[in-house]
Amino acid sequence: MPETRLDTARIRAARRVIDPIFLDTPLYRCEALEPHLGCAVSVKLETANPVRSFKGRGTELVADQLADTGPRAAVCASVGNLGQALAWSGRKRGLDIAVVASRHATAAKLDRIRALGAKLELVDGDHELARARASAIAQRDGIRLVEDSLDIETCEGAATIGLELADAAPSFDTVLIALGGGAMATGVGHVLKTLAPNVEVVCVQPVGAPAMTRSWHERRVVTTDTIDTIADGVAGRCPIPEVLDDLLVVADDAVLVAEASIVAGMRLLHDHAGLIVEPSAALGIAAVLENRDRFADRHVVTIVCGSNVDVNAYHRWISPA
Amino acid sequence: MPETRLDTARIRAARRVIDPIFLDTPLYRCEALEPHLGCAVSVKLETANPVRSFKGRGTELVADQLADTGPRAAVCASVGNLGQALAWSGRKRGLDIAVVASRHATAAKLDRIRALGAKLELVDGDHELARARASAIAQRDGIRLVEDSLDIETCEGAATIGLELADAAPSFDTVLIALGGGAMATGVGHVLKTLAPNVEVVCVQPVGAPAMTRSWHERRVVTTDTIDTIADGVAGRCPIPEVLDDLLVVADDAVLVAEASIVAGMRLLHDHAGLIVEPSAALGIAAVLENRDRFADRHVVTIVCGSNVDVNAYHRWISPA
Repeated sequence: MPETRLDTARIRAARRVIDPIFLDTPLYRCEALEPHLGCAVSVKLETANPVRSFKGRGTELVADQLADTGPRAAVCASVGNLGQALAWSGRKRGLDIAVVASRHATAAKLDRIRALGAKLELVDGDHELARARASAIAQRDGIRLVEDSLDIETCEGAATIGLELADAAPSFDTVLIALGGGAMATGVGHVLKTLAPNVEVVCVQPVGAPAMTRSWHERRVVTTDTIDTIADGVAGRCPIPEVLDDLLVVADDAVLVAEASIVAGMRLLHDHAGLIVEPSAALGIAAVLENRDRFADRHVVTIVCGSNVDVNAYHRWISPA
Repeated sequence: MPETRLDTARIRAARRVIDPIFLDTPLYRCEALEPHLGCAVSVKLETANPVRSFKGRGTELVADQLADTGPRAAVCASVGNLGQALAWSGRKRGLDIAVVASRHATAAKLDRIRALGAKLELVDGDHELARARASAIAQRDGIRLVEDSLDIETCEGAATIGLELADAAPSFDTVLIALGGGAMATGVGHVLKTLAPNVEVVCVQPVGAPAMTRSWHERRVVTTDTIDTIADGVAGRCPIPEVLDDLLVVADDAVLVAEASIVAGMRLLHDHAGLIVEPSAALGIAAVLENRDRFADRHVVTIVCGSNVDVNAYHRWISPA
């Protein structure tokens, strides 16, 4: 049993709180992808829901708690998907939600956050500045600060994906998980190491935003000064120590991939799986492209964690060369 | 209770036979689409499975029957999705599957049929010629002929979508169903008229392949000489009388849409719902675009029935004007 901040019984209980619209998502083989990747590939699809990412699983837990006992108001920093999901879960329960984001965040995500009725504040800086600002707002207004990956609900929500994967194990060998703050990797990893310990847990991060991966390899928090990736969903510079501790327990490996591989992954998923994915959701395919020998003849599951793309950028990424 | 060839108890029983990978598909609001359509829109997503269309629901029933009692071999005519699904269901059970298709069918669909191990025969003509050829093969070889929409299993399989929609009613007012041979329209229509009779059942067909819609309006079989539409999945010329009889019982309306609206629908689903859909799967959105007043302030569900597109054509359809 992995010793982390997570608890499998609590994760099972979380399923009863989360709106079913986010649960029991499709998991299926994509054979048309396989000649291009040299291994068996299944997709766990987290985009066919009202916020087009897996984040609703966690925000449902946060919002349910706030609706029961909290200040009925919350603020989070977000590169887009957490904010959108928190806005959705909050609106459903009549909560006041504020989101702080970088001015450089994907416009389509910011539009959706506004459309869902959240108050949106933009900061002139990157996600780490947005985190600081959200913290200041929470303190000033006495409302709940939702910290992605640090707050256990965000990990427990993501971990429910792990329960669904464990039900399908041992049909697959490896799960590829996009690594950003670490909620998904630690949540899914905890459950798999508990219920399906033979499944290999591989985290994938862009070379241009490698802080958590470097931290995992060095077994200590490593921060970076800059971020340079199209994978906005996983673009943090300052790993959270508690999350790193959990990741060290549950991850079998953490690998970095190049931007070109992320784009190639998005294009493969578009052309051969019929899926629109945001860059973060193509990290798993990118990892296979860069490590064909390692994954040859294995059966990998990649979690397609979001599809919120800027349409113009997306057209450029997937247009034929 | 609508009097059709279908029976709701048999449809419920079908759920126990169909591989769960095809069942309980996502059904969710797409609010980002709504400003463009002037009504509430939910999507029933039938593309997140190994064959990327709803057809597996029906072919699972056919193949299960053959594996139990039949000749362990079958042939069908297909514009692509039925053949792919029958090949998948047949391979799973070790059956011999042959598919007859027009030489002009979407290449990507034909590739997938071959990759799934079915024998593929191409005819120099349209789908109606493929139907005749499949019938001749069945007679010659003494194997099962699978006739889409005529064979009750194809309707019952599609009808299981109706059960899932009925569970969600009365949260929506109208369901928009792509109309081709009629399996999906009669199957889903039968269940909704039985379990959720207040839901309006609207069938949608392209102006360029209007045979079944004209037949429904004239209450008699009307055939057409030619087909001119990109919506290959619904492109028949010769409606089947038994299917028309059922459609007359369960459909509230049947409408035709222009090719430009189908393309506009595909683009809206791409840009605002993050979904790759084949032309047939955009018919519902096309119908809303052409009848804004009619659907204003209603809540429509559109069944996104397939995503098997030719990648090059798709890039042309959705590329920015």
